[in-house]
Order: sequence, then structure tokens, then C-alpha cells
Amino acid sequence: MSFDIRILGANSAVPNKDRFPTCQCVSIHNENILIDCGEGAQINISHYRIKQSKIRTILISHLHGDHVYGLPGLLNSLSMFGRKEVLQIYGPVGIKDFIEAVFAHTYVHLQYDLTIHELDHSGISEICKTKTAIISAFPMQHRIPTYGYLITERAQSLNINPLAIEKYSLDIPQIKAAKAGDSITTAGGIFIPNEKLVLAQKKQRTYAYCSDTVYDLDLVSYIYQADLLYHEATYLHELQEKAAERMHSTAREAAQIAHAAEVSKLIIGHYSSRYDDLQVLEDEAKAVFHNTNIVRQGDIFSIEN
Amino acid sequence: MSFDIRILGANSAVPNKDRFPTCQCVSIHNENILIDCGEGAQINISHYRIKQSKIRTILISHLHGDHVYGLPGLLNSLSMFGRKEVLQIYGPVGIKDFIEAVFAHTYVHLQYDLTIHELDHSGISEICKTKTAIISAFPMQHRIPTYGYLITERAQSLNINPLAIEKYSLDIPQIKAAKAGDSITTAGGIFIPNEKLVLAQKKQRTYAYCSDTVYDLDLVSYIYQADLLYHEATYLHELQEKAAERMHSTAREAAQIAHAAEVSKLIIGHYSSRYDDLQVLEDEAKAVFHNTNIVRQGDIFSIEN
Repeated sequence: MSFDIRILGANSAVPNKDRFPTCQCVSIHNENILIDCGEGAQINISHYRIKQSKIRTILISHLHGDHVYGLPGLLNSLSMFGRKEVLQIYGPVGIKDFIEAVFAHTYVHLQYDLTIHELDHSGISEICKTKTAIISAFPMQHRIPTYGYLITERAQSLNINPLAIEKYSLDIPQIKAAKAGDSITTAGGIFIPNEKLVLAQKKQRTYAYCSDTVYDLDLVSYIYQADLLYHEATYLHELQEKAAERMHSTAREAAQIAHAAEVSKLIIGHYSSRYDDLQVLEDEAKAVFHNTNIVRQGDIFSIEN
Repeated sequence: MSFDIRILGANSAVPNKDRFPTCQCVSIHNENILIDCGEGAQINISHYRIKQSKIRTILISHLHGDHVYGLPGLLNSLSMFGRKEVLQIYGPVGIKDFIEAVFAHTYVHLQYDLTIHELDHSGISEICKTKTAIISAFPMQHRIPTYGYLITERAQSLNINPLAIEKYSLDIPQIKAAKAGDSITTAGGIFIPNEKLVLAQKKQRTYAYCSDTVYDLDLVSYIYQADLLYHEATYLHELQEKAAERMHSTAREAAQIAHAAEVSKLIIGHYSSRYDDLQVLEDEAKAVFHNTNIVRQGDIFSIEN
């Protein structure tokens, strides 16, 4: 099962050199989950040929324009494309009023159902299960209410171990029971635990998204040992004071979080427009956490099994 | 004095092949007037290096998303760029509530003054004078309240005719009077009308913007003999019924309006995403009005003196 993150935009608020504001598409198997929806999101969704009909869930981190101004246009276009399937949106309190106000003032009447879930919890909490993923949200420290997201692939169905069929002379009902996760007792009365009947399960891969946030060690427990972490890195550390004041992070701080959380790989983005050359941000982060990449529009990061 | 129209987007609502929704920048001398502000406007303003500090006026035709969803992001970015100068926005009733609602829900506090003028008049009416232009607005027939715009360059100051100085022995006060547009009476009591004292004035160039609109001959009197007309041409005429139903125009209809209004040149846009090849729209219009061009993102159309 594929687990890919496509970067559709990774700049901060003010555009620079055709770098679009934040939007990502997480594709697990054939399901697309959008994270944030900055202005122009639908243009890049079209440009990179993201299947719109496969978008069933949109996660919004917070209501700053560079994360949400592309949402009304996308939702409207989905309707014009003939969408009928319900769409689920998750975001902080206020997102429902925002969408409804924009639609009311711009004469939008969607032809499909939109279900908007407003988040207002502390700690990490599972917010939904999709066909392929379990999505959890956790609060982050930014200037306004903001949530990070942890996307975990769902456990795949159990496969029977062919050697076990022979060894324990399993019949069809026993095989079915084992695939459903049950242990069995043989005709001779011997108890066989489930893990001896099925093939070892692969680890469930996880992707963690932390943008926008100040440097915050509280995040570590939420994203611990994630396979891939996206963490904002708006500034170089020489502007740490400005980062803290604006409640953003530096590249070094992003790497410190990755290191503390023992993630496998870090990707950074949400660049200030002051940086024409983004390599300096990667270099700074790599010095603390080597397996780091800056993201560029169009990049795909795959989490391998 | 230059009079240029830069196309920053010319697609209709749904994106296709990187064609952005509607936005234009009219530059007269060193002043920029934006017309419409579809999603992504600020990205192309940056891409095409439009001087943001020279944007003092924004004209919005109507409140459909493909003409207005780029406005909040642009206004916010201008503030982040440090703008202090007042910005004037003109548009149909509702635009003030739209902007204020978006800003309230997305925590925007501009650092400059925004003056929003809501239009609600019939017929053509002058709405403002800028340093270089006189701007008039006229209602159009679309699904929601919509205004077209006529931008006329302001008369340049009168230049004295050197031959007249000699012929009528003009003194300094008489020259000043003539340059101010007055006629004079010579010491000998002879009346000299102003046009004999100054150089012939160049014609004041005009640009007319009609999008979105159904085919509507009422427009002809508003845009009569404009130097350049932008008229929407969402469909080919084979879809005339759909155009009328959606209150849009076909390429042939745009050309018919240009012909009836005796404009010098027609440019067409606001293409439906169904057209990958836009040349067919130009061909259809040219059959009725030869001096027609389709517009493409980044194009500049200059109105020569």
C-alpha cells in the first residue's frame, strides 16, 4: 500500500518566486487526504493531477489565510465538477463560520454534503478513521488556535501463514477465525495463539504534520517515532527571537524536535519569503538532524513499508 | 504616457492547465489599477513583478469566487509588505461584508486604511478620478449584481503652441491662461479661442471591461468607440443556449458587441475549462470582428496614443 505526501505549497504568507502557500496531499493507497489549503491549492491540485474524487477528508491546521484561503474555491470547484460524495473537513473552532460566511457572500450552494468538524480539545485525540487511515489531532502553540495532525495507516487485514495451515491441519472455519484475529483450539485440545497462525504484520506507518507552531517540546510525545515528520521552519536560527515572537520555528528548532521525537525522517517548509535560497534552511537543520529535506512544490515523499 | 493592460488570469471558475481565474492590471503611466482578483492573484502579481505600491485602486466586477477569492490574501499581503497608503476598492453591494467577514474569521488586521465603495446604480456613472484615470461603472446582466468598468485616461495638461506665441505676441499671463484652458482677448481687442493657442490634444484613450455578462446590447452605449474592449467569451457559439442560461457570452456574441460598439480592438477571455485549445474561440470571434485576440496569462495589451 502506497503512503505518499505530495507538496502542493510550502511557503508562508507572502508569495515569492511562485512558491504557493501551504497545502499537502497525503495519499494512502487510493485515498487522498488534504492538509491545509492555502490560496491557489486548487490550481496545484489540477497541475499535479491529484484525483479530486479521491479527496474525502481535509484537515485544516488553523485559520490564517495562507492555510485556508484556497478552501472556498476548491470546495466550490468540486461542486462544479459534479461531486456528490460527502466531504469531511476538520479544523479549529471558527472554520464552520468562515466557510459559511464566504459562501453566503459569494453565492455558493454546494451540490454535495459538507460535514465540518470543529476541534476543541487538549492533548492528542483520534478524530476519525477513514478507509485507509486513523487521524489524530493535537493542539499546537501558535498565535491562534492551531492543531497538528498524526496520520497512521490502518492495520491491513491479517494473512494466514501457509505453514500454519499444514502444521495445525487448519480447516476453513479455523482459517477464517485466524484471519479475523482469533486464536484457535485444535481438535486435540491444543490452544494456538493467533500470532502463530498469521503472518507478522507490518508496522503501521505514521506521518506527523506540525505547522504552524512555535518550538514546543510538548509535541514530542504526540509524534514520537513517526516515520515522517513535517515541521515548519519559517526562519533560520539567527532570527530565533523573531520566530518566537511570531510563534514560528527555526530550522534548527524543527530539527531539535525531530531529534527529540526520534522520528525517522524530517521534512521542513513554511519558508519566509525572505529566503530565495532554501538550501540554507536544510543545511541548518541537517546539522542537528541529518535525515532532513527541505520540501519544494511538487515534491513527493514516500513512506516505505 | 503608457496605457497597458496586463493579463494576470483569464479562466473561468474551474482551473485548467495552470490558467488562473480572472485578474487584470491596468497600468496608466505609473499607476496600477487592478480589475478583479481571482484566487492566486497575488501569486501572479509577484510572478509578473507588478509594483504593489502602485496599486491604489481595485475594481471588482461581482462576487463570484473566480473574481474575488484572491482579494483577502492580496489585501493581507500588502499589509505584511508594510503598506501604509490608503487603498480604494469598488464593487457591488456585499463586497464590504465579504471582506470584513473573511478578515474577522481569519484574524486579519490591516496596517493601512481600506476604503470600500459599494456600487448600486443604474446606467453608467463616474465612480472616481485617480491621478491618471477617470473610472466609470455600469451594470451588467449576470446571475448576481455585476458591474463593468470604463477606464479613460485623464486629459493631459495643455501645451502652448509656439507658433501662437509669436503670432499673437502672447505675454506670460496670457500663456498661463491658455494652458489653463482659457481663451484670451488681445490688447487690440481680438478674441482668440483656446484651441488656436494650444496644441491639439491627443484623444483620451479608453479601456472597457465587460466580464461576466450575458450578451447584452445595452452595453454598446457604455463602451462606444472604446480603444480596447475586454469582453468575456466563456463558450463557443455552439453552446449559446448554455451561455444564455448561465448568463455568460459566446465568442461570437463578444465580437457582435465589439462590432456594434465600434471599438478599435477586442480581447476575449474568461474561458470555460472545457477548452484546452483557445484558438477556436479567437477564430469564431474574428469571423465577426477581425481585430480580436484571445488573452493568455502574462499578455500585455498596450493602447497606443
